[in-house]
Amino acid sequence: MKEVLQKIRPTTEERQRVNQVVEKCTHNLQDRITKKGLEVEVSLQGSIAKDTWISGDNNIDIFLIFSHKYTKEQLKKYGLKIGILSEYEIAYAEHPYVRNFLQGYEIDVVPAYQFKEGIRSSVDRTPLHTEYVKTHLKDKDQVRLLKKFTRSIGVYGSDLKVQGFSGYLCELLVIKYGTFLTVLKAASSWKLGECLFLEQLPEKEFTEPFIFIDPVDKERNVAAVVSLENFAKFIYHSREYLKNPQPVYFFREPEHYTRVKGTALYRIDFTVDVIDDILFPQLRKTRDYLVRMLETHGFCVFNTAVYDSGILLELSVFELPPFKKHVGPPIYEEEHCDRFLEKHKTIRIQNDRIYAVVKRKYVRAEDLLQGLLNKRQGFGKDLMKAKAVLTLVSKDADILTYD
Amino acid sequence: MKEVLQKIRPTTEERQRVNQVVEKCTHNLQDRITKKGLEVEVSLQGSIAKDTWISGDNNIDIFLIFSHKYTKEQLKKYGLKIGILSEYEIAYAEHPYVRNFLQGYEIDVVPAYQFKEGIRSSVDRTPLHTEYVKTHLKDKDQVRLLKKFTRSIGVYGSDLKVQGFSGYLCELLVIKYGTFLTVLKAASSWKLGECLFLEQLPEKEFTEPFIFIDPVDKERNVAAVVSLENFAKFIYHSREYLKNPQPVYFFREPEHYTRVKGTALYRIDFTVDVIDDILFPQLRKTRDYLVRMLETHGFCVFNTAVYDSGILLELSVFELPPFKKHVGPPIYEEEHCDRFLEKHKTIRIQNDRIYAVVKRKYVRAEDLLQGLLNKRQGFGKDLMKAKAVLTLVSKDADILTYD
Repeated sequence: MKEVLQKIRPTTEERQRVNQVVEKCTHNLQDRITKKGLEVEVSLQGSIAKDTWISGDNNIDIFLIFSHKYTKEQLKKYGLKIGILSEYEIAYAEHPYVRNFLQGYEIDVVPAYQFKEGIRSSVDRTPLHTEYVKTHLKDKDQVRLLKKFTRSIGVYGSDLKVQGFSGYLCELLVIKYGTFLTVLKAASSWKLGECLFLEQLPEKEFTEPFIFIDPVDKERNVAAVVSLENFAKFIYHSREYLKNPQPVYFFREPEHYTRVKGTALYRIDFTVDVIDDILFPQLRKTRDYLVRMLETHGFCVFNTAVYDSGILLELSVFELPPFKKHVGPPIYEEEHCDRFLEKHKTIRIQNDRIYAVVKRKYVRAEDLLQGLLNKRQGFGKDLMKAKAVLTLVSKDADILTYD
Repeated sequence: MKEVLQKIRPTTEERQRVNQVVEKCTHNLQDRITKKGLEVEVSLQGSIAKDTWISGDNNIDIFLIFSHKYTKEQLKKYGLKIGILSEYEIAYAEHPYVRNFLQGYEIDVVPAYQFKEGIRSSVDRTPLHTEYVKTHLKDKDQVRLLKKFTRSIGVYGSDLKVQGFSGYLCELLVIKYGTFLTVLKAASSWKLGECLFLEQLPEKEFTEPFIFIDPVDKERNVAAVVSLENFAKFIYHSREYLKNPQPVYFFREPEHYTRVKGTALYRIDFTVDVIDDILFPQLRKTRDYLVRMLETHGFCVFNTAVYDSGILLELSVFELPPFKKHVGPPIYEEEHCDRFLEKHKTIRIQNDRIYAVVKRKYVRAEDLLQGLLNKRQGFGKDLMKAKAVLTLVSKDADILTYD
């Protein structure tokens, strides 16, 4: 573990460089605020502020904390105006903010409201989180280990692409259990719906697979975004690491999608320009719809994944006989039977149901998928209009995927 | 209907010929009984006695009705001794009896006990049935029509091969509803578990699809053997006939098994020498077992049938990829997971379950079937030892089948 920490703990030089950049930016921002005479406080947030960052991280979060006297429109307008410090792009959370690129760092300047009796936007809570971690976290290296570990096994990140563990969640876990290893030991016997808390017993019923009550807001589940699969992965890898605690476990490369021999692998690539947090829920919704349709039509889906620009579908049954049973009503329903008989001249009887043998519309899964792509029912909103290309992949798909 | 009746009502010559044969046999049997000094009554039973037989029928039932003073052993012994009138074979119901072949007739000589306070064997009830029908049935031609109709649509016969309507059941239906057409009209709206009776309300709960309380024994369901499918077929054809009452409906030829294009059709032929009533339940039990196994292994069964010497299996999915998912325990069950991990080195996670990708034992349905034939688990008793041959049928199977 020492070996690992040596690699992931920021060096003195790294710290100095970051501090210089932070100081420079803060100074700059403060200057503009004073010049405009605004009631806004500049505040360093995120893992730099909490000193839980990992060597090599290049993300700096600076918050512009606005007085409540400003409207949302003003906050947005001033936030963007003040926030531009260098080369930049506009990023989006609940409202837009500026992402600056300076000396190799990504510096997010995020406008938020001063936290008073209640929050007006989801980012308003961040300074409270920073404060809580600063005052409660004893061993920051333990958080570094946990973050690196979750990143290595592919469950780090609370965005809707990864649906994993946020940095704050990692910090809370270490605050609760003390060390990286005790977190893993606890996780080894977590159950579905595991509900953890630090300050207050939860009052609300949470329905997510994993619950960690936010110590600054007992109504909120910090782990709400964690998918069932990522929760399971964390439990699994916790046990595996404890059985055989090797440093390599912290430095895994993300794995590309591997297929199974004899299956048919299809990919659907969409040309669509929306942010990941909007794209991935739509990809998953569309994926689930396609799986339902494939199985309804008699095909068997072996595995699926979503990726940055589309959906992977791996099928174990992808060709079917040209005819199928079309099951009709039970014999006792005379009217329904008569209506069925009007449509189908020859019927057969199985148990107490009538059925017809009809031509299958889609003998090959590929044709069904192409048919669904032409119609676009049940697709995510932005995927309905996007250009889409269906390909039968002959080898492994060289793609980083998410479940 | 007149046209039909002209064809199926026995002619005067036919009646005379039958009466002569019956008289001759009865005389012969009576003679032997007198010589041996036995307390046995000779009695004509069946459709000849009730005059509900159809032109061309060649089956005569003569009962030897024994006093209760004889043991079952004696009844069996005397029954076989007295009963041989010509060329013969030994047939089996609950106990053996003699089937004579004489002047083109099959003459069954069946020993039974005199019905007193209770029955000692299932055939003892027959004389009561005959008596009941004789005294309650008004229009015998209506029974002829119903019997011929059920035979034509393939649901006539209360043996375990057909699992259909017995002659007695047809007679009771006409006694209940009056005519062939009114039986069909009633049948058109029969429901699952339809429960009919003539004399007494049923006291027992019957679980069969179709129930007709025996008027001479309210504990007994005359339609007990009728399968769900034959019940449904009768309802279906009743409606169809009423829509378009053509004489051809009475003179259908039994249809051979027809397959559907693109499926794979397998037949398993057994070399086994047991009577149909023993064979067919075993064929069905074995068929159901094979279907379960095929589906467990990922194949899709489209249709099945049993026939005089075996089983037909028609598959719509009969080849699969060489690998399959082997689903393990939920991640929360640590011990089970560890045991699974001992067996499978690489696992994956889907939702909250671990699974391994393993080599499929049977890629082709044929190999699985051959494997099951080699083991013979779950097979009917007599089929376990019988010689069995599995064949992939390339065209239609030229076989009369039963469901």
